[in-house]
Amino acid sequence: MPDTFSRANDERVLADLNALRAIGAYKTGVHKPTFSEPHRLSLDWLVQKLPDAGLTAAIDGIGNVFGSSAKRGPKLLAGSHLESQNYAGWLDGPLGVVYALEAARVLNADPSVSGVVEVAAWCDEEGHFGHFLGSRSYVGQVTEADIDAARNRTSGRTMRDALADMGFAGRSRATAEPGRHVGYLEAHIEQGDTLESGRLAVGVVTSIVGIWQYQINFVGEQNHAGTTRMAARKDAGLALAKFCVAIDGRFPAACGPRTVWTTGRITLDPGAPSIIPGGAEMLFQIRDDDPTVIARLEQLLRSMADEASANGPCTVTVKKLRTGAPAMMNPGIQDAIEAASKALADGRSVRMPSGAGHDAQMLATVMPAGMLFVPSIGGISHHWTENTADADIVTGAQVFVDACRRILGG
Amino acid sequence: MPDTFSRANDERVLADLNALRAIGAYKTGVHKPTFSEPHRLSLDWLVQKLPDAGLTAAIDGIGNVFGSSAKRGPKLLAGSHLESQNYAGWLDGPLGVVYALEAARVLNADPSVSGVVEVAAWCDEEGHFGHFLGSRSYVGQVTEADIDAARNRTSGRTMRDALADMGFAGRSRATAEPGRHVGYLEAHIEQGDTLESGRLAVGVVTSIVGIWQYQINFVGEQNHAGTTRMAARKDAGLALAKFCVAIDGRFPAACGPRTVWTTGRITLDPGAPSIIPGGAEMLFQIRDDDPTVIARLEQLLRSMADEASANGPCTVTVKKLRTGAPAMMNPGIQDAIEAASKALADGRSVRMPSGAGHDAQMLATVMPAGMLFVPSIGGISHHWTENTADADIVTGAQVFVDACRRILGG
Repeated sequence: MPDTFSRANDERVLADLNALRAIGAYKTGVHKPTFSEPHRLSLDWLVQKLPDAGLTAAIDGIGNVFGSSAKRGPKLLAGSHLESQNYAGWLDGPLGVVYALEAARVLNADPSVSGVVEVAAWCDEEGHFGHFLGSRSYVGQVTEADIDAARNRTSGRTMRDALADMGFAGRSRATAEPGRHVGYLEAHIEQGDTLESGRLAVGVVTSIVGIWQYQINFVGEQNHAGTTRMAARKDAGLALAKFCVAIDGRFPAACGPRTVWTTGRITLDPGAPSIIPGGAEMLFQIRDDDPTVIARLEQLLRSMADEASANGPCTVTVKKLRTGAPAMMNPGIQDAIEAASKALADGRSVRMPSGAGHDAQMLATVMPAGMLFVPSIGGISHHWTENTADADIVTGAQVFVDACRRILGG
Repeated sequence: MPDTFSRANDERVLADLNALRAIGAYKTGVHKPTFSEPHRLSLDWLVQKLPDAGLTAAIDGIGNVFGSSAKRGPKLLAGSHLESQNYAGWLDGPLGVVYALEAARVLNADPSVSGVVEVAAWCDEEGHFGHFLGSRSYVGQVTEADIDAARNRTSGRTMRDALADMGFAGRSRATAEPGRHVGYLEAHIEQGDTLESGRLAVGVVTSIVGIWQYQINFVGEQNHAGTTRMAARKDAGLALAKFCVAIDGRFPAACGPRTVWTTGRITLDPGAPSIIPGGAEMLFQIRDDDPTVIARLEQLLRSMADEASANGPCTVTVKKLRTGAPAMMNPGIQDAIEAASKALADGRSVRMPSGAGHDAQMLATVMPAGMLFVPSIGGISHHWTENTADADIVTGAQVFVDACRRILGG
């Protein structure tokens, strides 16, 4: 690649990311729940930056930000999200938005590039109100009734009220125009330790695993914690604990090489110190990119629940909340990222699945999609200590911009 | 016992209990949290009834209702509480208040009885704002600073605000006058199945068990539920589940014949479906009337925590929140209840400890105290299905009134 090719501006990328970190800062991370004031200010920040990339900025009726161009020629869509998990990291989301902005600034001004990079910041990837609401809306999978029903998972505030407060109510929602984009590219921190432990700079994502989510309910008998003999108890909380331990014991023999499972939430009913829980509930999640593995594990889970109910004293039921088909990333885009890594990161890349969900899985339902990962220090994610070395951030930006150029054929 | 002795009026007792059930009715039970509107109306109901028993009614600065008499002679204090657990039973509390009211109505009008029955309804026995705040205040164990700090466990509302709304702010708090009372008697539903399974009518309480309460904390590492390999996880929720199961396995060999233990609340931090919990907490309680048993179990608990921390991957710490010395019931009062049971319940009584805490344990710190239990259907308690057969309610009332007479020496 000749030196005269325009490249990412390392200082500008770091400065932009730090500017976004300063909005809603929490320790070394950020706290920017969807439609919070720091989230709104971050959207405004992007809207003000997009014209520097030759793009026209707009925010649609669900809070997605778009930077679009009226130019002819092939268009690549690039982006990620700007809100954060609660009290979480500064790069989860903003990294991909700033890379996309940088690619647009560099390539849209380069006369040797025939196409255009357009930019998107998808709203609520982190699921404060739902489940990938912004990107799902763009691919046509969110109805007005879905928005009516959406509520903040913490405060219970309706999404309609939040949209009204943000000034977005009444706007139309943008949806993908068939044929407009040659593809979608998203960069993200890895959120695991594969790259760091392999001393690699770039992850070329091959697939985004599906997420299967279950609500497992335990019904026993609520009673007084002082007057009910141990032998007479039907303690739903204890039944839940035993079930968690049983999963831990039996899943390893049935899972695939990369399967992960998690109990993220436990609720005892009524949850008072002097009352034996009559009910208990756990949210349980399995992730894999192989649906046959999931089918095997789901069957195991259901048979374990039946066994537990038969053994008593509590009954256990498994309800599937969410089925997540894995999303395959486009091979041509994978090749472009790998080629860019060879050119600008000494080939320190690896092809790998994404264990986390990303907006790219929604975009993949309507256009070729790809993802690039940069290393996460210690593999830590969804926590304010989440971080990536500056050197890795700028290498990632260089590779991302070059990959965009290659996808556009520039 | 001659027939001419005045006795409890069965219909009046049942009518009063049903009148209190109608205030804040929920299914077949009630929902009367402390300082809720139904609780206030229940206090007002009692205030209006007390003059029928020759008593002067007053509500003090913490919401305790007293019916007191200026008469000379020995005085017996009797009572219980009028608020309920959330969505709970109709008799837990009101039974003891109505029995006390009935004893006062019957005996204070009986010229053959030289003494007086005074009536109390203790505020917040159920602990919406604290821990036996009303009766603890009466025995001088609640400071103004304690009240400043007290908040509703559900809503977070301060007790000061609630007292102001009730109109009780600024009133002085009544405290026990040394020598005023010969003793305290409280009736309550058993909340267990000892009486029912033994086809008995009356429990003569020998002691109220102590409650030891612990907060057990698990510290792991918060991480992403999709990107963190199973082998790399430090899942605090799983560590908690294993600890619960270990307690279930190891406590039975170390406990006493009547020890009970309960995990009533579990919290995962942050409690989101896609985040591996970095922290977890359980509220754990042990009850026994033998402090040596408790000491042995506490030592076991701490050694289990040390073992779990040593084995990893999470650290486990045990913090004692509350030490509850058992309260012994007065032998003379026990004898009086047993004699009344022989006279009026065919001797169908048994001496038994109380596994539940009651206001009587607070009163026992300043005067001789006793308790009488009536059967609970199915042993069910702290739930709206909690109930007692009408026949058992009226037998209990007869025995209670007669026991009061015997304690007063009438």
